[in-house]
Amino acid sequence: MHKQKKFIRTDLAIEAREMHDTNQIDGVKVITQDFQNIRVTSVKILNSIGEKNLKRPQGNYITIECPFLNKNSVDYREQTIKILADNLKKLVYKKNKFKPENILIIGLGNKNITADSLGPKTISKVLVTRHIKNFVPEEIKNFIKTVSAISPGVLGITGIETFEISKGICEKINPDLVIIIDSLAARNISRINSTIQIADTGIAPGAGVNNKRVSLNKKNLGCEIISVGVPTVIDAATLVNDTMDKIIDEMIFFSKQNFEHDFFLTMDRLDSDEKYNLIKKILGPYENNMFVTPKEVDEIIERLSNIIANAINICLHEKITEDDINKFICK
Amino acid sequence: MHKQKKFIRTDLAIEAREMHDTNQIDGVKVITQDFQNIRVTSVKILNSIGEKNLKRPQGNYITIECPFLNKNSVDYREQTIKILADNLKKLVYKKNKFKPENILIIGLGNKNITADSLGPKTISKVLVTRHIKNFVPEEIKNFIKTVSAISPGVLGITGIETFEISKGICEKINPDLVIIIDSLAARNISRINSTIQIADTGIAPGAGVNNKRVSLNKKNLGCEIISVGVPTVIDAATLVNDTMDKIIDEMIFFSKQNFEHDFFLTMDRLDSDEKYNLIKKILGPYENNMFVTPKEVDEIIERLSNIIANAINICLHEKITEDDINKFICK
Amino acid sequence: MHKQKKFIRTDLAIEAREMHDTNQIDGVKVITQDFQNIRVTSVKILNSIGEKNLKRPQGNYITIECPFLNKNSVDYREQTIKILADNLKKLVYKKNKFKPENILIIGLGNKNITADSLGPKTISKVLVTRHIKNFVPEEIKNFIKTVSAISPGVLGITGIETFEISKGICEKINPDLVIIIDSLAARNISRINSTIQIADTGIAPGAGVNNKRVSLNKKNLGCEIISVGVPTVIDAATLVNDTMDKIIDEMIFFSKQNFEHDFFLTMDRLDSDEKYNLIKKILGPYENNMFVTPKEVDEIIERLSNIIANAINICLHEKITEDDINKFICK
Amino acid sequence: MHKQKKFIRTDLAIEAREMHDTNQIDGVKVITQDFQNIRVTSVKILNSIGEKNLKRPQGNYITIECPFLNKNSVDYREQTIKILADNLKKLVYKKNKFKPENILIIGLGNKNITADSLGPKTISKVLVTRHIKNFVPEEIKNFIKTVSAISPGVLGITGIETFEISKGICEKINPDLVIIIDSLAARNISRINSTIQIADTGIAPGAGVNNKRVSLNKKNLGCEIISVGVPTVIDAATLVNDTMDKIIDEMIFFSKQNFEHDFFLTMDRLDSDEKYNLIKKILGPYENNMFVTPKEVDEIIERLSNIIANAINICLHEKITEDDINKFICK
Repeated sequence: MHKQKKFIRTDLAIEAREMHDTNQIDGVKVITQDFQNIRVTSVKILNSIGEKNLKRPQGNYITIECPFLNKNSVDYREQTIKILADNLKKLVYKKNKFKPENILIIGLGNKNITADSLGPKTISKVLVTRHIKNFVPEEIKNFIKTVSAISPGVLGITGIETFEISKGICEKINPDLVIIIDSLAARNISRINSTIQIADTGIAPGAGVNNKRVSLNKKNLGCEIISVGVPTVIDAATLVNDTMDKIIDEMIFFSKQNFEHDFFLTMDRLDSDEKYNLIKKILGPYENNMFVTPKEVDEIIERLSNIIANAINICLHEKITEDDINKFICK
Repeated sequence: MHKQKKFIRTDLAIEAREMHDTNQIDGVKVITQDFQNIRVTSVKILNSIGEKNLKRPQGNYITIECPFLNKNSVDYREQTIKILADNLKKLVYKKNKFKPENILIIGLGNKNITADSLGPKTISKVLVTRHIKNFVPEEIKNFIKTVSAISPGVLGITGIETFEISKGICEKINPDLVIIIDSLAARNISRINSTIQIADTGIAPGAGVNNKRVSLNKKNLGCEIISVGVPTVIDAATLVNDTMDKIIDEMIFFSKQNFEHDFFLTMDRLDSDEKYNLIKKILGPYENNMFVTPKEVDEIIERLSNIIANAINICLHEKITEDDINKFICK
Repeated sequence: MHKQKKFIRTDLAIEAREMHDTNQIDGVKVITQDFQNIRVTSVKILNSIGEKNLKRPQGNYITIECPFLNKNSVDYREQTIKILADNLKKLVYKKNKFKPENILIIGLGNKNITADSLGPKTISKVLVTRHIKNFVPEEIKNFIKTVSAISPGVLGITGIETFEISKGICEKINPDLVIIIDSLAARNISRINSTIQIADTGIAPGAGVNNKRVSLNKKNLGCEIISVGVPTVIDAATLVNDTMDKIIDEMIFFSKQNFEHDFFLTMDRLDSDEKYNLIKKILGPYENNMFVTPKEVDEIIERLSNIIANAINICLHEKITEDDINKFICK
Repeated sequence: MHKQKKFIRTDLAIEAREMHDTNQIDGVKVITQDFQNIRVTSVKILNSIGEKNLKRPQGNYITIECPFLNKNSVDYREQTIKILADNLKKLVYKKNKFKPENILIIGLGNKNITADSLGPKTISKVLVTRHIKNFVPEEIKNFIKTVSAISPGVLGITGIETFEISKGICEKINPDLVIIIDSLAARNISRINSTIQIADTGIAPGAGVNNKRVSLNKKNLGCEIISVGVPTVIDAATLVNDTMDKIIDEMIFFSKQNFEHDFFLTMDRLDSDEKYNLIKKILGPYENNMFVTPKEVDEIIERLSNIIANAINICLHEKITEDDINKFICK
């Protein structure tokens, strides 16, 4: 049996999986595929044992690691779009009998905060067809799904829970699939803006901040759900915490070989929540508001929203290109 | 009895009223008040005769003309905020028995097109309290109304009618008053960004473009409605049409005195729709997409959204200042 | 000998050329090439007779008409980039002996006014190498030119003439070629955002508004100059004027066949400046500030700045791709 | 004699001063004044001994601490503007014989990166008069100084050093005072966006990153210089480093009282550069690019740029209000 090293708060199933020492986790199936400079990891949580081990609901989590997105290579971006579209198709059409026809895309986040604007930015780029479907020629109509898209905004600006807005709109337009785009929080600084996670398990908006908030999932919204998320920030306390952990690890290794080591070991044995809260206390009241983000965040969010919007367009409207549809929009 | 000179398409009741030759229009009551450099005109449509004469539904239309907003004077802006807040109060609390407690503010328009972004911009500046009301101290709670706010986006981006989104959300949060902010189209170039119209009759989104779209009014949304609109553009064909009309008027006057005049008179007698369509044909397929706007539109929309948001905040939360509420938001 | 029909104010040589009734204009050589949906017209003003006939300085004016840019087709954009790059090369390397090594790119216009932001937007996308050239490996160094780029802003914001800023910087970095990007005013509504003009004759910033402003040309800046301009707006008075002209033309044609026609002919004979000034008077004091622009101007300027930046990058750094250079920037 | 505890990298003189254990530092004079919720600290470095002690050039450094700017109180903002304007006047007119008449304001930083856009944002809001001074009526002309303003951009976008651009422009317009606005890096998370430093000693752009870059100071630019800076970010390694230091301090205090303490003391004795570099190594290659910033950075930079622009306007054009000048701009 494997031992779970430390529990860490993370939005990424792949990071939860990495906390386990062994390759084999009960109730969890992991498959990894490597493409040129892009790695795809499918984590399938099979049952309640897997749920307990990875602390998240049963279902499929696919992680696409594309570390060179920051290099601004056109080829690499196109490869990323293709791989993301292929994996979206796996989740969207996973059950042979399920072919969604009426899709609502929801872009979560605050469009006025760049690092949180991935959802709204993507929404403005996906191909929306619900309002034109009755005007396109018959021969093309069958290739176009009914797609609509909204950015419900954030609680602080609207005063309304994301779930209330989403549910209210779902009841009006009755989608059979909801695709949610969201910014996530990462643990590892190297994952920021370079990892895309797609899942079919629903999401909890602002999870962790206020756990009474209603999740956007199949049960609550009444239809299938696919989420697409990218970690765009690390909160300041997490950054300090994780960096300290790594220093302590290194110190322990070093001290074991050289001299007395009981203090670092003592610190290492501290409860992880106690340590995290100590750091939060030291960072002070401002911390809750601070996050760590790369300098060129505006440019990268622009790029990521293009990639995700393109992949969704390819996934939903298979046989026709964007140029084709633009022709009909212009009619 | 008065004669209606020419029928013109306009979003402003005051412009509809100006088309009539006489001061007295059946079924319509008009009151004008002048403040220093700001004129307030209340047009009340009393009955179905008034509806027919002004071609819009029965109710109150208040127009605030503030031609010097483009001068960027702090004093003038504060005076405008005060007058707008006072007139909003007249409509919001017009019936002594009506005291709205749960208000939804809807900002119409496309945030990505500056001239159409007045609604979404204002939304981001109004004081939203619905999510914090349960956390403020008892002594202040009674002075704060429950306010929420959304920007439903536009049909071309969401694929969903504004009415469907608004209705879906209203059914979830049950407001007793909806305040709608929208950009309007003006006829007169001098009104652009310098006239604010408030009304209690509801609005038809994108009216005129596609008259099958459902109106946002009391009957359809199931609660009181106040709309706040500012003309921010003129469409290109309207500008040409109106300028030509003025030239023809001048020419007729001139030709009557001097020489043969039958041709201009002939042109003047042309059906106004025929003339408008002739201009549209000449402007070509691009015209539908073109509008006339002042160069510094970004700056003026910023200023106008501040004025409207401030006036709404004053109107809804009378006894406490923004500074007071900010204190509680920070708690 | 040909007769010049009407003199019109325009930034485009191709429009000046179209005002002439004949194909053959003294002192001017015109070559037209058609690609799929893109037309390239080279107007060469050979001597002072040509200068007088087209009312602009001797030199090369190449116009690329790409009417389908608004359709958002990826293929069409790539074709446009290629054709623009090819024609830029013709002007940049026109004299066999001239191979610029130190290039300064100047983006004119106001970044805060979308329709005027083409210059600054393009600047932020061109590949700038002056500061890294000494850090790239020897084998690649020879393929990279020394490129720097500035947006001098506009007189109303800086208080400094564009020429003063440009000249001050040129004296510090001594370029052998300056490339200027600017937004132009069009006459014809169908040209807006769908025509790219490149020229080697220099430009007069804000020409026409205040003719005392110093031109950015070879003589004043002391090095070769290429300008790249796109008409992004029409001023409101021009739009009305030109539309009226077309209506009058149509009326004259119609009246000749049917009935008395002396009045329209009279109006047609009016001095064009008198008519223009009459329209300006009627539009009122606001007119100077108003322009006509398409609704989706933000999106189109984004697209155009990408096209121009890409074409300049290809023109200047021939043998290496953007991906190649990004690798070195990351070193 | 006092002992300097630890040397820290900081852009703020007040933080450099705080590193010293004693109140009295040789060659340095410090005066502190408290207003309601705003503290003003003047640090005067008198001679080369003071220079050595605070590791920065001789001159005046005034720090305005306004911790409640994030509360969005109108009164507090107006108080901040007044205090900033008063202190700017002290530095601008410090020598009785010096009355600058021709002022160039330079806004450093990258307008496309929100946290670095304070300079360019302020530039777009200061009152620029150089181009209109000859058009205002005689009676007002004497109250208006000649003000111009530029945003030279950043090396990565222009390829040109800030100093080269600034010097090139200074040689054209010959200012007698340059005011520089810049974003700084803070050490202390609580200072971010809540401290304004003004100084008369010039600045080194991007100091520390590449120390060969030429400073913008009196000697190099040939005129008086005032700088206005606000810390808007902390780099990620600094945040981790300082938080760890505080934890270690706390641990040492705790361990002294309770049990063996030699290890923390050992860590405390580590060379501070070694520790910083260890953290940078652990954070990895991404670190150089990461910074810590508050979520609502867009809103706060907007507010700060308004405050600074207003204070500069008041400082330079004493007897006339912005409304007055706007009248003349409109003429």
